[in-house]
Amino acid sequence: MSAQAANDLSTELTLLSSVRCFGGQQNQYQHDSKVLNCTMQFSVYLPPNASAEKPVPAVYWLSGLTCNDQNFSTKAGAQRVAAELGLALIIPDTSPRGEDVPDDLDAAYDFGLGAGFYLNSTQEPWQKHYQMYDYITRELPGLVERHLPLTDKRAISGHSMGGHGALVIALRNTFHFTSVSAFSPIVSPMECPWGVKAFSHYLGEDRSLWKQYDSVELIRAGAPHLPMLVDQGSADGFLAEQLKTELLETACNNFEYPAEIRYQEGYDHSYYFIASFIEEHLRFHARYLKG
Amino acid sequence: MSAQAANDLSTELTLLSSVRCFGGQQNQYQHDSKVLNCTMQFSVYLPPNASAEKPVPAVYWLSGLTCNDQNFSTKAGAQRVAAELGLALIIPDTSPRGEDVPDDLDAAYDFGLGAGFYLNSTQEPWQKHYQMYDYITRELPGLVERHLPLTDKRAISGHSMGGHGALVIALRNTFHFTSVSAFSPIVSPMECPWGVKAFSHYLGEDRSLWKQYDSVELIRAGAPHLPMLVDQGSADGFLAEQLKTELLETACNNFEYPAEIRYQEGYDHSYYFIASFIEEHLRFHARYLKG
Repeated sequence: MSAQAANDLSTELTLLSSVRCFGGQQNQYQHDSKVLNCTMQFSVYLPPNASAEKPVPAVYWLSGLTCNDQNFSTKAGAQRVAAELGLALIIPDTSPRGEDVPDDLDAAYDFGLGAGFYLNSTQEPWQKHYQMYDYITRELPGLVERHLPLTDKRAISGHSMGGHGALVIALRNTFHFTSVSAFSPIVSPMECPWGVKAFSHYLGEDRSLWKQYDSVELIRAGAPHLPMLVDQGSADGFLAEQLKTELLETACNNFEYPAEIRYQEGYDHSYYFIASFIEEHLRFHARYLKG
Repeated sequence: MSAQAANDLSTELTLLSSVRCFGGQQNQYQHDSKVLNCTMQFSVYLPPNASAEKPVPAVYWLSGLTCNDQNFSTKAGAQRVAAELGLALIIPDTSPRGEDVPDDLDAAYDFGLGAGFYLNSTQEPWQKHYQMYDYITRELPGLVERHLPLTDKRAISGHSMGGHGALVIALRNTFHFTSVSAFSPIVSPMECPWGVKAFSHYLGEDRSLWKQYDSVELIRAGAPHLPMLVDQGSADGFLAEQLKTELLETACNNFEYPAEIRYQEGYDHSYYFIASFIEEHLRFHARYLKG
């Protein structure tokens, strides 16, 4: 399918580029998001032979701070395994975008553009655009399932801030996703500087409202079970202060949540870590997506 | 091995970073190049268990225009296969670097910094620094083989301008390399705009001196045989004007040079193409490096 032909498929979705990769197509799209009130881009990998007659299940990938839809697409090496397993990869941006979208006053990397934290903001000036939770759970799946050869089977994964997003979204939408995994997730934003800064601005100072976006709190509150795999590098410089994997371990132990949480010796926070284990994560998801 | 410990190993080589990847280490080094008269950085992947007692063979990777040592390291997904096969990856920069190094007057992407074309310049003001041929064939192998757990078995590969570099360097140093491969190589710089621009500046106007850096001319001149694999995407926008794979095919046919030259349907010039086929290239090299 040429870019021109695909452009004509829909007025709702514009194909920006389409590149062959492992026999499938790595595509980038643009659309006007009603939920985020801005124009958004996202990337999709479609495995070989995906078609309207043979739609495929999808793994959603949520990226971390400072990323957009390109980091995972270019660095994780996930397409090889997705091609083999017959899985689509849906790779959204990490925040609303555009000149109208407010950013951190200091343009810090951990808040504002590139740092949407996958929540629905309730505070000015953020709430008009920063509605990433609804974008990922409602608008984006609807959009891609209307226009691309996808089934309604979905799994979700992510890294760091995106690991937080994947866990929270899966724990609150266990009928919507078959399985969840995370690399180096922020397991409890309420208990780390990145999360406290972001939640204070996006959600205001009432911490009881923060719990709906905190994986540890959701497990303590009795979230339904779904298959969960977490990998954390032991040499990750953010582990002690920001990620705090042990809080998730403790909550899962105390509340008998059956997660598999693994420490990978010597690995750091980079895409070299993700690349090293993405195959295991995709095979994990494939078991449930295709089961 | 910590970065601090490794820093102390040598005054000749400084370890800038070391990140675990597929059980091995992805390292970046810095050194003062005598050949290039500047400070250079390069990257190395060392597979698991490489040690002074168990040194490993190496595949050199030469990158294309505008690249440095990071593009292949982060985007090709080569470490997975290198780890499995027990191969090191040696990934140099594409030109001399630093404020003293002259660049294209217009800072064009196809000449000067990031565009060394893997030759030894004979012209002012380029010749003081632009000696990439000697750097890749002599200085860098000597340096890494003195300090890292490598055997003296070497293969070489590259992309685009780096595919040109790999082919030329292998054809002129068949005792030095066991095998050569290339993605989307500039097969005859003398016959394309990128090459003519670069060779005119670096080598002067006497075209008889250009032939030593032109793969097609080297094959016509009876270069010794070594195992050669070339992949070219059929949807590569540079194929017709710059890469001209058919010139290499014709030369190999006419002079009975036993190369395997493949067109890959629908693939473009990007790292998505390289990622899709790097495994086959590394397995090709492993047959000769370990044979």
